[in-house]
Amino acid sequence: MKLLLISNSTMPGEAYLDYPKHEIKKFLGDKPLNALFIPYAAVTFSFDIYEQKVAERFAELGFQVKSIHHFSDPVKAVKDAEVIVVGGGNTWQLVRMLHDNQLMQVIREKVKNGTPYIGWSAGSNVACPTLRTTNDMPIIDPKGFDTTGLVPFQINPHYLDANPEGHGGETREQRIEEFLEINNDMYVVGLREGTMLLVEDKKMQLIGSRTARIFRKGNTPVELSSADDLSFLLK
Amino acid sequence: MKLLLISNSTMPGEAYLDYPKHEIKKFLGDKPLNALFIPYAAVTFSFDIYEQKVAERFAELGFQVKSIHHFSDPVKAVKDAEVIVVGGGNTWQLVRMLHDNQLMQVIREKVKNGTPYIGWSAGSNVACPTLRTTNDMPIIDPKGFDTTGLVPFQINPHYLDANPEGHGGETREQRIEEFLEINNDMYVVGLREGTMLLVEDKKMQLIGSRTARIFRKGNTPVELSSADDLSFLLK
Repeated sequence: MKLLLISNSTMPGEAYLDYPKHEIKKFLGDKPLNALFIPYAAVTFSFDIYEQKVAERFAELGFQVKSIHHFSDPVKAVKDAEVIVVGGGNTWQLVRMLHDNQLMQVIREKVKNGTPYIGWSAGSNVACPTLRTTNDMPIIDPKGFDTTGLVPFQINPHYLDANPEGHGGETREQRIEEFLEINNDMYVVGLREGTMLLVEDKKMQLIGSRTARIFRKGNTPVELSSADDLSFLLK
Repeated sequence: MKLLLISNSTMPGEAYLDYPKHEIKKFLGDKPLNALFIPYAAVTFSFDIYEQKVAERFAELGFQVKSIHHFSDPVKAVKDAEVIVVGGGNTWQLVRMLHDNQLMQVIREKVKNGTPYIGWSAGSNVACPTLRTTNDMPIIDPKGFDTTGLVPFQINPHYLDANPEGHGGETREQRIEEFLEINNDMYVVGLREGTMLLVEDKKMQLIGSRTARIFRKGNTPVELSSADDLSFLLK
């Protein structure tokens, strides 16, 4: 299994998908591939526009991108894909459309059988067992909280250490502690912006210069870096 | 109908429920009342501890508080209440427990019939038609997104103008825009910390020195203050 699970598409001030592009290239290799793009997390802009933004960056790397909304049979599109790319946006809308199109299980099987998977933000959320560690506003009933379960732990993308000065709402860490209170056998990876997780079979490592914060009920959170072996999270 | 819908319990550096206490006193009046407290949004601390914190502040104002978890029949507890108080915490857990205990409809009826309702944070979210504008992490399936619908608009409590410097995740405004894209006939009130909405029959006003930001699909968001009449939102 090959997964590249990216925290966020873009760093402030940079071009779309710019910072992870070299890692995407290393991950996919030199062979030209046709990538299937899943733009369902887009809410305030069209799937065509989303496809175009992603296709531009992938073309630069030597890969073709076609969005799933052009296929009359989305299940077949997944089955035929050489690469699956799931973009960010609103996780709830993404999960709803994956459920409505009956894609959750077929993506799972396809990727378990070796097709590379790239996701960022909401696209990383849906690689987890459920959407329960999303940051997004629940704008629509997803018709089920379960997602693909490609990895057995939860990712919190765009992980953030502190609230803006003077804001009294829960911090991200407090929100994750609430999650663990109810889901006490799960790991949660707080994946800071500018970082990503690379999974290759039973191995996992962090890519990026910032550490990831690993949470589990009853344990003090730990900070692990790109020098650490994160494979224990896959068990 | 009498509602006091508070953005957040506490301002940084102040005692619990300190800033809204004078408004709570004005709202409830001088007669000693027995308030029913609903602590279900608590996740990382006990209902007993939550009750104690709230009861202390209410005692200072001349009101008795008893938490619903002490009653063997929670539906009857709501029916008998003189005041209903719903505290903040995790909205998902709160909604799940309100559904599990079949309280959504009975609270609605009771408050529609004149029993005063006070909520803060998650407790304000559940006064709306759905939980779809909560900021909380979806740590548990709520078994239905609908809430009491005491007001016909959505509140986003702890409304926040900007992300921390350098953070690329969606701003609160972007999240609300996503909500409106799918729910295009709804008003959303961005209720900043330190402010609250007072509803008395068909009248609504904002209390606090900061403005509220009012969103509706297709309209530029507007800032309204305590000097404005917000009653149009009740229609």
